[in-house]
Amino acid sequence: MSTPGTHTEAEETHGHGDISTGVAAPSGSGDSNASATRITPGNALRPEDIALEVRTGLAKPTEDVAEYALRLGDDALILAQRLGHWISRAPELEEDVALGNIALDQLGHARSFLTYAGGALGENGAVKSEDDLAYFRREHEFRSAHIFEQPNGDFAATIARQFVVSYYQFELYRRLTESTDATLAAIAAKAVKEVDYHRDHSAQWVLRLAGGTDESRRRMIHGFKLVWPYVGELFEDDALVNRLAESGAAVVPSSIREGFDRLTGEVLAEAELDVPDVPTAPGGGRQGKHSEHLGYVLAEMQVLAREHPGASW
Amino acid sequence: MSTPGTHTEAEETHGHGDISTGVAAPSGSGDSNASATRITPGNALRPEDIALEVRTGLAKPTEDVAEYALRLGDDALILAQRLGHWISRAPELEEDVALGNIALDQLGHARSFLTYAGGALGENGAVKSEDDLAYFRREHEFRSAHIFEQPNGDFAATIARQFVVSYYQFELYRRLTESTDATLAAIAAKAVKEVDYHRDHSAQWVLRLAGGTDESRRRMIHGFKLVWPYVGELFEDDALVNRLAESGAAVVPSSIREGFDRLTGEVLAEAELDVPDVPTAPGGGRQGKHSEHLGYVLAEMQVLAREHPGASW
Repeated sequence: MSTPGTHTEAEETHGHGDISTGVAAPSGSGDSNASATRITPGNALRPEDIALEVRTGLAKPTEDVAEYALRLGDDALILAQRLGHWISRAPELEEDVALGNIALDQLGHARSFLTYAGGALGENGAVKSEDDLAYFRREHEFRSAHIFEQPNGDFAATIARQFVVSYYQFELYRRLTESTDATLAAIAAKAVKEVDYHRDHSAQWVLRLAGGTDESRRRMIHGFKLVWPYVGELFEDDALVNRLAESGAAVVPSSIREGFDRLTGEVLAEAELDVPDVPTAPGGGRQGKHSEHLGYVLAEMQVLAREHPGASW
Repeated sequence: MSTPGTHTEAEETHGHGDISTGVAAPSGSGDSNASATRITPGNALRPEDIALEVRTGLAKPTEDVAEYALRLGDDALILAQRLGHWISRAPELEEDVALGNIALDQLGHARSFLTYAGGALGENGAVKSEDDLAYFRREHEFRSAHIFEQPNGDFAATIARQFVVSYYQFELYRRLTESTDATLAAIAAKAVKEVDYHRDHSAQWVLRLAGGTDESRRRMIHGFKLVWPYVGELFEDDALVNRLAESGAAVVPSSIREGFDRLTGEVLAEAELDVPDVPTAPGGGRQGKHSEHLGYVLAEMQVLAREHPGASW
């Protein structure tokens, strides 16, 4: 790897120009806080930039926006934890690097969304940090959809999950760049470029595995059967997103299903794979109802921070 | 993370200019193969570039150089596996990203060194791939020094290990950029820039932990006690490096001890830490003698590739 993200980020100019045209200020843009937000969607945006804007009150999510950001952040966070496990276990060294990079991209998106969400989630107006939200919430407080907590399974199952979530995230972030919430739009503008690569990566693997040996094709088909019951939850609307859609802040999940079906369908057709005919799982992740899998992910992720709460590591 | 390494690498121009002045061609530079090597140390160099040069015979390591490259590659590979485990377990999300990036950098260096080594390690002149070398060697065939296989321990122990190895690698790669073997010099030129960042990262953590709470200082001191017995092995000379030093291809380990001691000493002094007074462990990694720890690292790393040897994943 030539340029680790931490270097690159430090060298990039951050989003401190004017709000670009086409992206309205958050609702309530008449007040001084909102109009002072100078995050520019086109520019790079680090979690540290968002933290600064949140701490100084330049960016302040509504409670609804915070809850929405929490969902997207949790999706990316749990996926990053899952993918990180492949770092020493992929079938090729090159793939170790690729999955590791995707995990770190997702972790970067999670940090941005959670940092922003934290701006409205503390008590009495206090701010919660990304680490507060990642390490000190309990299972029922996580808002990720069930597909993200599904076990890695074999390599083909991981690719099936990755294929679904990156096509979903691509459609979502692409639309979210037009959000009336400038911070959400800025995070999405950065994330969509990276997710576009994730999408391409997983599609290439779907084609390779489906068109490879009998064994790799069998595993690819099995991987899709495992993951497809969790597709439906990604596109379910609820009261929160409907409220947010009125002000143009959020993307209504059901509105991106058509794009998802069409684009994934093209790849599946090329791979000569059918859309799996499997029942839809109940879901409930957006309301904090999770499968037993999430508990194990959280235990591993949270143990060190909880052992020494507040320690100045 | 804004730009994962895989993107950046794909966009970079590769090392296909002329050999820059100051770096001699490998010994035997009079023959057509060596002079046709067009790897340029100043440019980015991907494992794929080296693989191409090796497969086409443009770059061909001597058996000694291959054995030497194997040592450096194994060091980086085992370290990457160890660090990858922190991806979901660091005390801060930001640190998850940092350690993940360092792991991927090390994996990149390992891929380059192993790919080059593979050019002289097949039977009857055949080439071995990086994956052959990573996944299908047995424990006694690995040439990494013992410090790289030491367990992660707590976060401070990982930082202690990282501090030692990155200062060692920095001195080594800095000198190796002057190698008479153009490929080794090119790999080192790329790696030294990244390892310079790793060095800074670990030094900052040593200062932060040593100067933090009583508990963090106690852990930092304990971490150094655990890792210091394995420092000596890094700087031991043997017949191979002495032979290679005659042609200027390798760096004699004992010759970089002074720089290592001086630069690490400056950080330890600033952190008000003593160089640990602990006995030196026996070592033997360069001859394939390892502790029981390496077996577990390899089992995890190799299981998937060995389950389906030759599968077209």
